[in-house]
Amino acid sequence: MRRLISQTTKHLITNATTASRLNLPHQPSSHYYNNNISRLARFLTSLPSNTSMASDKSTPPLTVDSINPKVLKCEYAVRGEIVSLAQNLQQDLQANPGSHPFEEILYCNIGNPQSLGQQPITFFREVLALCDHPTILDKSETQGLFSADSIERAWQILDQIPGSATGAYSHSQGVKGLRDTIAAGIEARDGFPADPNDIFLTDGASPGVHMMMQLLIRSENDGIFCPIPQYPLYSASIALHGGTLVPYYLDEATGWGLEISELKKQLETARQKGITVRALAVINPGNPTGQVLAEENQREIVEFCKKEGLVLLADEVYQENVYVPEKQFHSFKKVARSMGYGDKDIPLVSFQSVSKGYYGECGKRGGYMEVTGFSPEVREQIYKVASVNLCSNISGQILASLVMSPPKVGDESYESYFAEKDGILQSLARRAKILEDGLNKLEGVTCNKAEGAMYLFPRIRLPNKAIKEAESLKKAPDAYYAARLLNATGIVVVPGSGFGQVPGTWHFRCTILPQEEKIPAIVSRLTEFHQKFMDEFRD
Amino acid sequence: MRRLISQTTKHLITNATTASRLNLPHQPSSHYYNNNISRLARFLTSLPSNTSMASDKSTPPLTVDSINPKVLKCEYAVRGEIVSLAQNLQQDLQANPGSHPFEEILYCNIGNPQSLGQQPITFFREVLALCDHPTILDKSETQGLFSADSIERAWQILDQIPGSATGAYSHSQGVKGLRDTIAAGIEARDGFPADPNDIFLTDGASPGVHMMMQLLIRSENDGIFCPIPQYPLYSASIALHGGTLVPYYLDEATGWGLEISELKKQLETARQKGITVRALAVINPGNPTGQVLAEENQREIVEFCKKEGLVLLADEVYQENVYVPEKQFHSFKKVARSMGYGDKDIPLVSFQSVSKGYYGECGKRGGYMEVTGFSPEVREQIYKVASVNLCSNISGQILASLVMSPPKVGDESYESYFAEKDGILQSLARRAKILEDGLNKLEGVTCNKAEGAMYLFPRIRLPNKAIKEAESLKKAPDAYYAARLLNATGIVVVPGSGFGQVPGTWHFRCTILPQEEKIPAIVSRLTEFHQKFMDEFRD
Repeated sequence: MRRLISQTTKHLITNATTASRLNLPHQPSSHYYNNNISRLARFLTSLPSNTSMASDKSTPPLTVDSINPKVLKCEYAVRGEIVSLAQNLQQDLQANPGSHPFEEILYCNIGNPQSLGQQPITFFREVLALCDHPTILDKSETQGLFSADSIERAWQILDQIPGSATGAYSHSQGVKGLRDTIAAGIEARDGFPADPNDIFLTDGASPGVHMMMQLLIRSENDGIFCPIPQYPLYSASIALHGGTLVPYYLDEATGWGLEISELKKQLETARQKGITVRALAVINPGNPTGQVLAEENQREIVEFCKKEGLVLLADEVYQENVYVPEKQFHSFKKVARSMGYGDKDIPLVSFQSVSKGYYGECGKRGGYMEVTGFSPEVREQIYKVASVNLCSNISGQILASLVMSPPKVGDESYESYFAEKDGILQSLARRAKILEDGLNKLEGVTCNKAEGAMYLFPRIRLPNKAIKEAESLKKAPDAYYAARLLNATGIVVVPGSGFGQVPGTWHFRCTILPQEEKIPAIVSRLTEFHQKFMDEFRD
Repeated sequence: MRRLISQTTKHLITNATTASRLNLPHQPSSHYYNNNISRLARFLTSLPSNTSMASDKSTPPLTVDSINPKVLKCEYAVRGEIVSLAQNLQQDLQANPGSHPFEEILYCNIGNPQSLGQQPITFFREVLALCDHPTILDKSETQGLFSADSIERAWQILDQIPGSATGAYSHSQGVKGLRDTIAAGIEARDGFPADPNDIFLTDGASPGVHMMMQLLIRSENDGIFCPIPQYPLYSASIALHGGTLVPYYLDEATGWGLEISELKKQLETARQKGITVRALAVINPGNPTGQVLAEENQREIVEFCKKEGLVLLADEVYQENVYVPEKQFHSFKKVARSMGYGDKDIPLVSFQSVSKGYYGECGKRGGYMEVTGFSPEVREQIYKVASVNLCSNISGQILASLVMSPPKVGDESYESYFAEKDGILQSLARRAKILEDGLNKLEGVTCNKAEGAMYLFPRIRLPNKAIKEAESLKKAPDAYYAARLLNATGIVVVPGSGFGQVPGTWHFRCTILPQEEKIPAIVSRLTEFHQKFMDEFRD
């Protein structure tokens, strides 16, 4: 690390001296080098000083070979090749109805509940609409259209926003009053204090993850621990920021168990190769694997991060999606605090989103990260990066405050709110079970239970002939299977190779989100396809 | 370039061979190396193979010296030190009213109209509210609360969104129907065709700029041409992506003129130093400088980019903000097309935002970039990066379609819409003029006209004694001036050193956004402060 600092210093000095050679502007006095604002001036002049290139030639045209190679390296299977294929089929179906052996495309590739017919929670949408157009708040017709508590909540929220200006940029971390509400929601959930100044509101969870990767990754020698299988946001973000993904494998045989011995082994291997592992990403409930971590297991993970000096990146966007009575969601912050670790003991970031849970408001792009255990200097840098994009969208901010503070018993909306929420969660649990059972009946397929989240990740044992056929088409075998499935049934799933898996095993990820009445047909179409596929390729 | 390709290939091969040494998973057959999905597997195993580091040591704690140095290098003056100071003063004023010689903080640091009392356009907010809560669309009370054309428009928009699901992730580029509307709006504006497939909807303009920087910048040897003074989003984004800002100076003496001779000179200098200048960013109307480019000047810029092989990044977010009859906004795409350059002749990105114009909907985080002139392969990479964040927020997408397709003559809302729009733009023009005149009356201050955008960028000739005082406090002289101004008057401006300026000159940026009735008081407070400041320091 000391080496890095001295290199950085040297670099800055070099820049300062080349500035005069370049006859580019630099500040007239070395005093300014102690001033933040003068960094821009330094930066303007930080042209490196190699001199070999011809100066009379125009820049070569931009081609895919001359873009940032980190962009080329990045992959995002959830919206990859299989989705392009699905979109083409959908256009086909619209142009020539009856041209395929199915009537609609069923997008089971992505956790996007409302695209498959899930209805938004009425109370949340009432409040959003009123905050968008506050001039109707005191009109008499509004009483007939909106619940009394949604009107009251909208007034409260407008009071929290300076000037009631829902069209103004907010504080870079988000509106302070909304962060107060979120912090109170976290306290109610965990039973431990939460500080509104630790909350950074974001446009969904993804920008928060990018922000942390940007902060942590200096070069390919910096590693981020990720589960395998993982949600490809992590591999994509690490690739874009030029770091190294250090894998830890979840154990499929024990319901995607997370073993500390595996973490230790992989950490050792990475360190031997000169990788500084900086953080551990954990997704709980799991994506794509659907497991819910036991509290004891979470304690081990916290202890491991503490001992090894790792930042704990806790992806907790599925915190409301738990479907089995024997498991409960516990936030990593709650677990760490219950172990006696305070704010200064362990750097921990918890990501939450309005896109998941029973609300499923993906299109609203709301979310937050709760950032604890960092030094004030590092926090200031996180704040600076957040401020470059000014703020996240205010509707998303409002919605994040609502999901962390929904109607309470006694509120006018409470009963309808609870019925909507409970209906969605109960139905998701039933859908998960029917799909799981259906998958487990297929030849050569085994599927762990979806304890939580929105996905099943069945393992498919493909015949050698099918593998050879895929190879001859230069496709991963599970990508070949997924493409055949789509062409035969209209069902879109994501091949396991997009998430990572133990070499030689093949999987796909399938959401549990299609409408409940469609699930039996999906199971039978899947069963019929799979049977035919196996018949075609059986060794 | 060829060297880069071979290096990349070598890198991938090295990774593949180290994988087996590492005993980490790699794909069993070289076939997969031709398959996109298998890239993840390669990426997982791409640990570099230096072996010097001790393997029994935990990761050192995260400090400001061990974060990504690019983050440290990034600065964003618009929300920098001066804003923290303002926030502290505001808290002071709330806790102890009367503790300062002013009653409120006037945020003239940022183009955030609604934070200073500008009201949103009613029609836009009606449509947003109805799209947020569509179940009220066919209720009778709704007719009394909303205009007929807002109800009709909401139905149209819901028809354009698959499943009418405003809570679902959209296509990664944004809802296709909304892109159709935007493309039609661009065609109506320019008189040249626009393709909805060229539109990428974004959460404000900033994420679009970041995306392009991410694509274009490979290392510090890649340069991006930026005007000086510039909007610090550009310097911040280039710093975060590790590139080099190549400055071109606007000529204050000719109303912030953009001279092609200056571009040529700076390009030559940069190329001599081994910088590949990849793109030219131009902000029109100018930020912080407020000038509106003449069409002839734009043609020269297009010709220059064409000749030199530069991507033209056109920041056109102030396209509706033109205040002088002798100037008109022309998009760079229109200018290029009118010169006979078609889609394949010049790579051009135009950024637009819902945050500016007469609408000023900063908190909605809506915007788009229109991407033309790139090869299909490069376009695919832009699409991929967009898809990693899934999509921009749907309310922002809807609003972007509305600002590009506002009510038309004959629509029920047209008259009120036009009155609101015209009222805002006329008032902004008057405010700009009063502030400009007031500034030009100050001792040692000269201020160019704000032909457009939302800012004035006066030059202040500071006495040597003031400069020395600032130096003794390790502050840039204009930062010192701005801090003194804030402490004396509550007016927040951004020091010119945050935007870049000719060395030895000092400026500040001041928005024209405070409510019109407050402008005379602002001018008199500024005048009084400036007089006292000069009296204190006059040489």
